[in-house]
Amino acid sequence: MSNNNPIGFIDSGVGGLTVVKEALKQLPHEQVLYLGDTARCPYGPRPVEQIKAYTWEMTRFLLNKNIKMLVIACNTATAVVLDEIRNELDIPVVGVIGPGSHAALKCTEKNIIGVIGTETTVNQKAYSQMIQHKSVETEVIELACPKFVPLVESQQANSSIAKKVVAETLRPLLKTGMDTLVLGCTHYPLLKKPIQNIVGSAVTLIDSGAETISEVSFVLDYFDITADKERNHPSHEFYTTGSEELFKSISEEWLTTDQIPVTHVVIDN
Amino acid sequence: MSNNNPIGFIDSGVGGLTVVKEALKQLPHEQVLYLGDTARCPYGPRPVEQIKAYTWEMTRFLLNKNIKMLVIACNTATAVVLDEIRNELDIPVVGVIGPGSHAALKCTEKNIIGVIGTETTVNQKAYSQMIQHKSVETEVIELACPKFVPLVESQQANSSIAKKVVAETLRPLLKTGMDTLVLGCTHYPLLKKPIQNIVGSAVTLIDSGAETISEVSFVLDYFDITADKERNHPSHEFYTTGSEELFKSISEEWLTTDQIPVTHVVIDN
Repeated sequence: MSNNNPIGFIDSGVGGLTVVKEALKQLPHEQVLYLGDTARCPYGPRPVEQIKAYTWEMTRFLLNKNIKMLVIACNTATAVVLDEIRNELDIPVVGVIGPGSHAALKCTEKNIIGVIGTETTVNQKAYSQMIQHKSVETEVIELACPKFVPLVESQQANSSIAKKVVAETLRPLLKTGMDTLVLGCTHYPLLKKPIQNIVGSAVTLIDSGAETISEVSFVLDYFDITADKERNHPSHEFYTTGSEELFKSISEEWLTTDQIPVTHVVIDN
Repeated sequence: MSNNNPIGFIDSGVGGLTVVKEALKQLPHEQVLYLGDTARCPYGPRPVEQIKAYTWEMTRFLLNKNIKMLVIACNTATAVVLDEIRNELDIPVVGVIGPGSHAALKCTEKNIIGVIGTETTVNQKAYSQMIQHKSVETEVIELACPKFVPLVESQQANSSIAKKVVAETLRPLLKTGMDTLVLGCTHYPLLKKPIQNIVGSAVTLIDSGAETISEVSFVLDYFDITADKERNHPSHEFYTTGSEELFKSISEEWLTTDQIPVTHVVIDN
């Protein structure tokens, strides 16, 4: 049996594209529908109730397009509302915090894991709860990096400002003894180089987005809803609540293609 | 909510302990029940119907011990009977071929993946079907290594004979251009060193067992059946249909502990 309905991905902006990039690589026959709420990005500093409401708006938008699975490709939204959405929906729902946590537990030798994320992700203790739920003796050090998402969304990820901001922000993590650092925000893989430079090559960076697609892949098998493998080049659809041009430019750079059809949409009505 | 019932692991012999090793690391609060059918190992050269019957016997033995999840920690059994067992049982069932395939697809850059396994795993084309079900343009080269399991089960994994057998067996894979090699049998991580020596450091080895625990972890979360995190040092139980002494010796070496309580059992009655 196969199911050719699309997989839906939602994020506060362009960060979730780091998850989509892995989906296009690992699951080339699956059709991707992506919605980035760029107009209201970043979610990190917002009140929890607002993040819930916004995430539900994104979810409803994609449900109307008949998705077979929802990937909450945003750590902040996963931290706040994954359980609620999973309980309400009839389709499988996958978040990014579980996969990032599992990968970190697999990786760490010293049982000391660093996690960087938005204020909300860190305040919710989403990663430390998930990791310690599995292994209470593992130390988890979480650090909020509120300046990172605006850097990425304004296309300054490769700038010298970015290097400086990353160096200053990560200083508190440098003497913690961590051997594993979770990029606990899907925007952060776009800052991977400066982050790796600062923490050093002995620390393994975990890209929760890349890990997430392994779980998506498992869920497709488990519920027997994989797309027909004869279907090549499914037509993906990208939606943004913000500027089409800005979204297109970042997404084409990140996905290294010039074939990104982006449509502006309004979802808060 | 939590569920403190054990997770069951089955294998044709001691190979599945490479999966258990990861479970003990990543999921220290989960109780492990392991059954190795050492008396009838290897499964690889046996007829499919016999492998099915044996795997069902192992499954029923652990079901009677009230497991909350079954891990078929044996590639041969997974290749032959995972779907059937998953459809019949009321508890989640995880095999090792999906996780190994997902990890290989994540890893490969050249889209050329090598897979080594038992005769049955290779004859069933279990990995190439799973990988190409996800990505039809990925080339998969499968090679049967019938001599590897007996080497491990007879405690010769570190011998000079092992080096020679590995070198001769893997020769057909050396000029294939693969950048990723799946250890498609849970015994093979015990031969990781000689295998890596022969294929070279440019080829990434995928330990399907280690990958499997990430999926187990996900399933525990997804179905909300994780053990209570306050439970420390759950008492694991290991069963073998063969010699307790031999099993104990291999398992203590591999799990680097001398606390392995092994019980001989008869399951084919």
